[in-house]
Amino acid sequence: MIAKRMGTVEYAIRDLVVFAQKLEKQGKKIIYLNIGDPLKYDFATPSCMAEALNKAVAANHNYYSDSQGDMECRTAISEREKRLNNVNISPDNIIITSGVSEAISFVASALIEDGDEALVPGPSYPPYISYIKFFGGKPVFYKTDESTEWKPDIDDIEKKINEKTKFILLINPNNPTGAVYDKKTVKEIINIAGQHNLPLISDEVYDFLVFDGEFHSTASIAEDVPIIGFNGFSKSSLATGWRLGYMYFSNGLDELKESVLKLARIRLCASTPMQKAVLPSLRGDSQYEKDIKDMKAKLLVRRNLAWKRLNEIPNVSATKPSGAFYIFPKIDLNDVWKNDKEFVIDLLNTENVLVVNGSGFGDYGESHFRSVFLPHPDVLENAFSKIERFMKART
Amino acid sequence: MIAKRMGTVEYAIRDLVVFAQKLEKQGKKIIYLNIGDPLKYDFATPSCMAEALNKAVAANHNYYSDSQGDMECRTAISEREKRLNNVNISPDNIIITSGVSEAISFVASALIEDGDEALVPGPSYPPYISYIKFFGGKPVFYKTDESTEWKPDIDDIEKKINEKTKFILLINPNNPTGAVYDKKTVKEIINIAGQHNLPLISDEVYDFLVFDGEFHSTASIAEDVPIIGFNGFSKSSLATGWRLGYMYFSNGLDELKESVLKLARIRLCASTPMQKAVLPSLRGDSQYEKDIKDMKAKLLVRRNLAWKRLNEIPNVSATKPSGAFYIFPKIDLNDVWKNDKEFVIDLLNTENVLVVNGSGFGDYGESHFRSVFLPHPDVLENAFSKIERFMKART
Repeated sequence: MIAKRMGTVEYAIRDLVVFAQKLEKQGKKIIYLNIGDPLKYDFATPSCMAEALNKAVAANHNYYSDSQGDMECRTAISEREKRLNNVNISPDNIIITSGVSEAISFVASALIEDGDEALVPGPSYPPYISYIKFFGGKPVFYKTDESTEWKPDIDDIEKKINEKTKFILLINPNNPTGAVYDKKTVKEIINIAGQHNLPLISDEVYDFLVFDGEFHSTASIAEDVPIIGFNGFSKSSLATGWRLGYMYFSNGLDELKESVLKLARIRLCASTPMQKAVLPSLRGDSQYEKDIKDMKAKLLVRRNLAWKRLNEIPNVSATKPSGAFYIFPKIDLNDVWKNDKEFVIDLLNTENVLVVNGSGFGDYGESHFRSVFLPHPDVLENAFSKIERFMKART
Repeated sequence: MIAKRMGTVEYAIRDLVVFAQKLEKQGKKIIYLNIGDPLKYDFATPSCMAEALNKAVAANHNYYSDSQGDMECRTAISEREKRLNNVNISPDNIIITSGVSEAISFVASALIEDGDEALVPGPSYPPYISYIKFFGGKPVFYKTDESTEWKPDIDDIEKKINEKTKFILLINPNNPTGAVYDKKTVKEIINIAGQHNLPLISDEVYDFLVFDGEFHSTASIAEDVPIIGFNGFSKSSLATGWRLGYMYFSNGLDELKESVLKLARIRLCASTPMQKAVLPSLRGDSQYEKDIKDMKAKLLVRRNLAWKRLNEIPNVSATKPSGAFYIFPKIDLNDVWKNDKEFVIDLLNTENVLVVNGSGFGDYGESHFRSVFLPHPDVLENAFSKIERFMKART
């Protein structure tokens, strides 16, 4: 009865939660290091956005908005991208979505047919893998190299392009590795996309969260190569549960944009009040800026702590993440665990600490796990001590 | 470059808006009778919900919620369905979605493969048509009979079932016809679904808006036949732009539910604050109940006005809608217009009144148009006078 495409769908990050919930029902207290949601830790949505939401609802901005997105919000997005990322994008080329996940599904459904391929970073944020498979395609992972702080292997990208390839994906700053790519690297990937006439998707949802080095938005240096930019409010506006994101089309791609707009029309619109409520963050409201500055300061301490502590644990080694709020350590499985998923489940059952198995991010993630460094330092210390005890007991 | 499935996607209701926007740019004032959005007229979201939203955001309910839906909200939905519709449904069998449109896409993608068929009412709400085609299937329209107030033709349903049929859809109260089905009719369709072992989708988003007769929720009388119920907050909570709906599974369908849950996990969750904000409407808050009572009283007057005035216009005849806020009059095209789409565009250009062409709802909608009766009586009078003048001039 169920369509075959459903067999392709899984989502490591959320599927593991089912195991944790079983333990909770038995009265165990779980330390969750698995979900990239600052709101579950000691961060809160900036109050200027809460106020803007109240005002929007009171002003009756509760109607179906333009399927493409509220014009005031698209204009503010355009200005934000110019101000922060030096990207010139007209509001006409922006589409507002229910989170970046909707943007991913829109583009995958418009570009991928049975047997098509798409080049995605290995490791990669799982919804890309899921949606490409869901629409009949095959995600082809290009290597990102742990020994060079998870930089994309340009030769590997080049080698894996063939006539079935429909797009190249870049996630920068990267989830799950925390890598931030230098300008030269971004430019090299742009060049490959241009040479092969492939649209380049640039997921920049962590653009505001860079600790070391400098972030370079792909569209700002793409010249005439077509770029599809993805961004959103979940992380940069501390509003994960609000489900609002956006995509933009730079340098052409009109036909693709028209296709995505058709999909946008069937689902009517993204949340209207939320589109009004994010205006202060887009416009750089001073209270918003202060909250983000505080967040970055807190996260820098936690990033340093996570990196230091994880590297002190036997058989664990972690590259220092330059951006986002994830760290992606390597584990020596030795002969203790068959694979990283067994490791994660064993750790969960033994120490009640939940991380995500690296293989959930594709084959290049094998023998790794992903941890957030969002919790308070005391919680992180406690979690890493448990992981340390666990590793010492097992290996 | 664009996937073939995109060629199947169109949405009459929203696609026509492009024509109207062109006229607006020329300075024309359009009377919009095309979009089913009470918030665009003299209705407002109940203030108890605005307050609940403020409180939810202030209490930091801004995180990613359970992919299936916030448990407090699912519990309130379960209680609402029991209280209003006599449907017994556990919160475990409810999934909260970003509007009913997301529920439609979830079920279509989980059930429809290339070459499959689904039985949908003719005429039918367009997103059903779009999503079934989008996932490779063919919407097969069963006749609903204008001469019996748009009741489904049971024999026609029976006749059109074959081994490719994957589900039957019921929309009750109906969009676009406004029909509300009597208990015997609902029961007959349930029986057919049961005999052929087909899941029956029951879209009940207008369940609260019945002027004549009584509404019978399909799941309340389905006994052991599997039902997928669709409902939402856009209309019943006067919150179209909030994009929140739900689906439930009654009498089995566990495998389908698990598939839909996988899809729900990839897109993370429906809006968390909105799930908290709709609690007063689900729980029958007295201020909410008063607003809905006022809305129904207003709409009853407008329904009667629309029905009377449209039937006074030459070459137009309309069945009285018993529910929802649509009327679906027949037009005698004679040799003046090639089809109803030409009629609608001619009316728009000549009198600046926008309705939706009936053929946008499938072949059974041909030679009809859909109008909302949401506007203030003065606006409706004005619009119908324009249509009358137009018809008198043309025929």
